[in-house]
Amino acid sequence: MTRIAVNGAAGRMGQTVIETAADRDDLAAVVGFDVETGEVDGVPVVAEDVADALAEYDVDVVVDFSVPASTLPLAAACVEADAGLVVGTTGFDEDGMEDLVAASTSIPLLKATNFSRGIQVLQRTVREAVRALDGYDLELMESHHNGKVDAPSGTAKTLLEVVQSERDVEPVYGREGHAPRAEDEIGVFARRAGDIRGEHELILAGNDEVVSLSHHAEDRAVFAAGALDAAAWLAGRDAGQYDFGEVVDGA
Amino acid sequence: MTRIAVNGAAGRMGQTVIETAADRDDLAAVVGFDVETGEVDGVPVVAEDVADALAEYDVDVVVDFSVPASTLPLAAACVEADAGLVVGTTGFDEDGMEDLVAASTSIPLLKATNFSRGIQVLQRTVREAVRALDGYDLELMESHHNGKVDAPSGTAKTLLEVVQSERDVEPVYGREGHAPRAEDEIGVFARRAGDIRGEHELILAGNDEVVSLSHHAEDRAVFAAGALDAAAWLAGRDAGQYDFGEVVDGA
Amino acid sequence: MTRIAVNGAAGRMGQTVIETAADRDDLAAVVGFDVETGEVDGVPVVAEDVADALAEYDVDVVVDFSVPASTLPLAAACVEADAGLVVGTTGFDEDGMEDLVAASTSIPLLKATNFSRGIQVLQRTVREAVRALDGYDLELMESHHNGKVDAPSGTAKTLLEVVQSERDVEPVYGREGHAPRAEDEIGVFARRAGDIRGEHELILAGNDEVVSLSHHAEDRAVFAAGALDAAAWLAGRDAGQYDFGEVVDGA
Amino acid sequence: MTRIAVNGAAGRMGQTVIETAADRDDLAAVVGFDVETGEVDGVPVVAEDVADALAEYDVDVVVDFSVPASTLPLAAACVEADAGLVVGTTGFDEDGMEDLVAASTSIPLLKATNFSRGIQVLQRTVREAVRALDGYDLELMESHHNGKVDAPSGTAKTLLEVVQSERDVEPVYGREGHAPRAEDEIGVFARRAGDIRGEHELILAGNDEVVSLSHHAEDRAVFAAGALDAAAWLAGRDAGQYDFGEVVDGA
Repeated sequence: MTRIAVNGAAGRMGQTVIETAADRDDLAAVVGFDVETGEVDGVPVVAEDVADALAEYDVDVVVDFSVPASTLPLAAACVEADAGLVVGTTGFDEDGMEDLVAASTSIPLLKATNFSRGIQVLQRTVREAVRALDGYDLELMESHHNGKVDAPSGTAKTLLEVVQSERDVEPVYGREGHAPRAEDEIGVFARRAGDIRGEHELILAGNDEVVSLSHHAEDRAVFAAGALDAAAWLAGRDAGQYDFGEVVDGA
Repeated sequence: MTRIAVNGAAGRMGQTVIETAADRDDLAAVVGFDVETGEVDGVPVVAEDVADALAEYDVDVVVDFSVPASTLPLAAACVEADAGLVVGTTGFDEDGMEDLVAASTSIPLLKATNFSRGIQVLQRTVREAVRALDGYDLELMESHHNGKVDAPSGTAKTLLEVVQSERDVEPVYGREGHAPRAEDEIGVFARRAGDIRGEHELILAGNDEVVSLSHHAEDRAVFAAGALDAAAWLAGRDAGQYDFGEVVDGA
Repeated sequence: MTRIAVNGAAGRMGQTVIETAADRDDLAAVVGFDVETGEVDGVPVVAEDVADALAEYDVDVVVDFSVPASTLPLAAACVEADAGLVVGTTGFDEDGMEDLVAASTSIPLLKATNFSRGIQVLQRTVREAVRALDGYDLELMESHHNGKVDAPSGTAKTLLEVVQSERDVEPVYGREGHAPRAEDEIGVFARRAGDIRGEHELILAGNDEVVSLSHHAEDRAVFAAGALDAAAWLAGRDAGQYDFGEVVDGA
Repeated sequence: MTRIAVNGAAGRMGQTVIETAADRDDLAAVVGFDVETGEVDGVPVVAEDVADALAEYDVDVVVDFSVPASTLPLAAACVEADAGLVVGTTGFDEDGMEDLVAASTSIPLLKATNFSRGIQVLQRTVREAVRALDGYDLELMESHHNGKVDAPSGTAKTLLEVVQSERDVEPVYGREGHAPRAEDEIGVFARRAGDIRGEHELILAGNDEVVSLSHHAEDRAVFAAGALDAAAWLAGRDAGQYDFGEVVDGA
């Protein structure tokens, strides 16, 4: 059974990861890290001496949903304790990205902006459709809860990258007034309302038809489950950088 | 049987109005007006002496899908010939609006931004829902073909006015980067792609639920049919300003 | 502060009600009832002597998500203890319904198939749209998780009743093979898949356009919140039958 | 320039094919066949001596939207006149299918149930998603105008075949009453309402998420355009059976 630590244990995603782990037989959350000590769902949460705790609790893989300033020292501790690292944190600058790459020469490391199998599949079908429907207009929309302050979402950015790897399009983030559409533009829109868990949709329109590829998250547990899948898959692998797509394929 | 003239007869909507009229028993398109003479679907199109033509063809009501510079002299001709006027043209400035109001003291005049019964119903349900779901976040989206150069659509603007008559919200037309949502804002988004005939959607989200009210036009014939319904309804009425909602209610 | 008891406290909805109550200032869950004793989220759960417990814990209103065989003795206990009753349980036969009506001559009682404000609004907009779009075809679809064994959902049945109060339509629950549509039929479809929290959509189509009115539940907490709103609203009312629509209107 | 004949020229699809051809530079509709003679959009329509007419008008490829009883003698005439054949007609029995296969040993022949590039792409993304989201529940829905008497649509049947080639699922065409979902079932629903041009959607739900893959036809011109693409592509090919997917890939 894979032994998991959770960084950002008191945060919303951290708590969900710990609760989701409790329902699984293939792994167990054994310790959490956060700025305040205590416990989450029966799992002890410690604030300091992370490398020591990783050794003490015999942790195989750490799942991290925090902020870059917390992830980077964590990566160093993982290297020291020889633990794998699953990074769900976003917002790293170039230096931070380099530090993660450096860590991956010593430990198995998997970083993803979205741990949903459905989003993985959405990315693949988007690639396929953009390639096949050459000349169709593309528009991307995502919807999230009203507390999300960044736009567009990390997942929408990833989808845009997928689109741009197939076609040379420039995003516009709104249209108002006289706004004729350029052939090589893609509208990227971010709705923010209520408690929406997360929706993403790409439409491809042309030739009197519209193809729509979309994903709807019913609960953030989907992302916790995916991160745990990634952790279970990562345990015991060689050092290196891995991709969530490999987890989905069960490679 | 109501005798109809069509202004802007050679335009896309004008042609659709003439074609749609051919399938109806309660009215007939007898003459068209446009900058070039000729015929559309068997109906003669003339370019000048509009008031004379209205009298000559014994026109009851004119249906107008053109530009303000064409609508305003047309309104004067209708007053001269004592014909009703259905205005589907948009983009009037204040002076133009006053001229239309002045004409309506002499003839029955109905101006609408959208001649769809479904859009009328959408407006009513939007009003009802915004009123009842106090505190829910609102976001408005419309989608049209890639040749539409203005954003948002006239119908979206009307829906926004309906929302604003019930709640004090300010539109934002795009979100990018750090964009925390204000409580009193409403996102208004315009997708432009392919040949989309016209879609409008308002979502109301809060309290872990989302209500969506939407309209999809399958064909621009829906607008032609509504304009003709309006013309048939307007024929023989007293002078005055009328509303498409009255047509829908069959008042 | 309104003091609440929860019947069916160990069930999925009962637990959610207790958890949701913990976040509110206007009420508190003070005791639960279920077949096994214990506690849920710190609230004691008892199995017997319900009327005594209602008195002992000084309960104002009971919220019930259970089965008819549990609700009916509960209603008698509420009458004995002079507590209000919010019933979310479904599946009563005629005798059971009569017993509830009888109880409402002594205590305030509110029964609903759905405690969502959004669903209330959906019902109202459905009524409005069916009335206004006379002659348009209607089709109703709902989607729920794969463990839901009854079809269509209680909410879909209620929506169907709303439609039928405005128009004489007969439901068909599937179409296969040669299946010409009768003018007075309404397709009613039940999708069952994954963990879908609950979606309902009515479309009205005719005249080259489609109006869609829909509701999506992001979480079952929406129903718990509504039931608690009902309980807070019901406390201190006169005996009688009440409707969730009155709660939404804040009457 | 490819010279096209249209069989079923007076039918709804035949007329649309002829009108759509008029806007293209790479091909021209030069003759039509139907039970009554006359003309459609300036193209002469003849009723008899099809093989002679194919020779007389120097036809490269025939596009056929008719009924099997008309398609089969047409195929023989194409063999005689050495013309290619694009078949959009459906409903062939086994003997009819064998006759088409036999014809394809002499002429290039392409038969499809749907000539939309978007539907082709939908099929491919459906295959990809069903394969990758092993264990997710699948539900298929299509919507068409109220005059469509068969259910589900030919395209929905094709999508079901794609799904079944990847997973062992049995369709159910409705759910009512006590209807627990079997793991290996797929709900297949057919909405019929108004003038809906054609919608198809597959959802894949599991693990607290839903992936939706859908297609919406804005106009039947999309199918005419695809059939003409197929005709242009087929002209001059070797005898054999071809697939619309090859046209989309531009192979």
